[in-house]
Amino acid sequence: MLKGIKAGLALLAVAGTAVSGAAWAAGDSAAGRAKARQCAACHGANGVAKMPNVPNIAGESPIYLEKQLKAFRGGERADPQMSVIAKPLSDQDIADLAAWYASIKVTVTVPE
Amino acid sequence: MLKGIKAGLALLAVAGTAVSGAAWAAGDSAAGRAKARQCAACHGANGVAKMPNVPNIAGESPIYLEKQLKAFRGGERADPQMSVIAKPLSDQDIADLAAWYASIKVTVTVPE
Repeated sequence: MLKGIKAGLALLAVAGTAVSGAAWAAGDSAAGRAKARQCAACHGANGVAKMPNVPNIAGESPIYLEKQLKAFRGGERADPQMSVIAKPLSDQDIADLAAWYASIKVTVTVPE
Repeated sequence: MLKGIKAGLALLAVAGTAVSGAAWAAGDSAAGRAKARQCAACHGANGVAKMPNVPNIAGESPIYLEKQLKAFRGGERADPQMSVIAKPLSDQDIADLAAWYASIKVTVTVPE
């Protein structure tokens, strides 16, 4: 199980949350929907941003969403709002929020 | 014109690029569409990502897209791919790319 640095890091990542299991917490989109109420003021209840300096996050992949929330939480990505908001989130919170926003279907129409 | 810090910062921001004019370079979405060919391998020709660690960028606001590209270019945001790709982009390239991706229409459907 400890073959190399990657496995070691993965183990460290889950050490606090599970004895055995995936390095990535499974997200519950229904739980995420409830937790996302705090996100709606900027990102919209449907994941479509309410202000031009904020991204739409509807339909983004859960992998990308988790990565960004963890980057804000850990300080690798900085933003006046998100750095504060992400700080207290647990891995489960992040997985749930990611699952919720990823569950919103997006269709795109490219200009002629 | 120099009422307060905000006006001063806005003036500083344009000092290098224009004597008088908008603080934000005007983007040309048609030019951006052509320049975006290099982005399509990861972000898709229609701005829908082709891999799970990459964001969909179709329909994001031009303000947000410009801000992120400039953050990658300047090093405030880091990513193995984007930090390299954004480095040689001019302000005009960034404005054009932002205008192009912002011009793609997005509709969302929230789960029941």
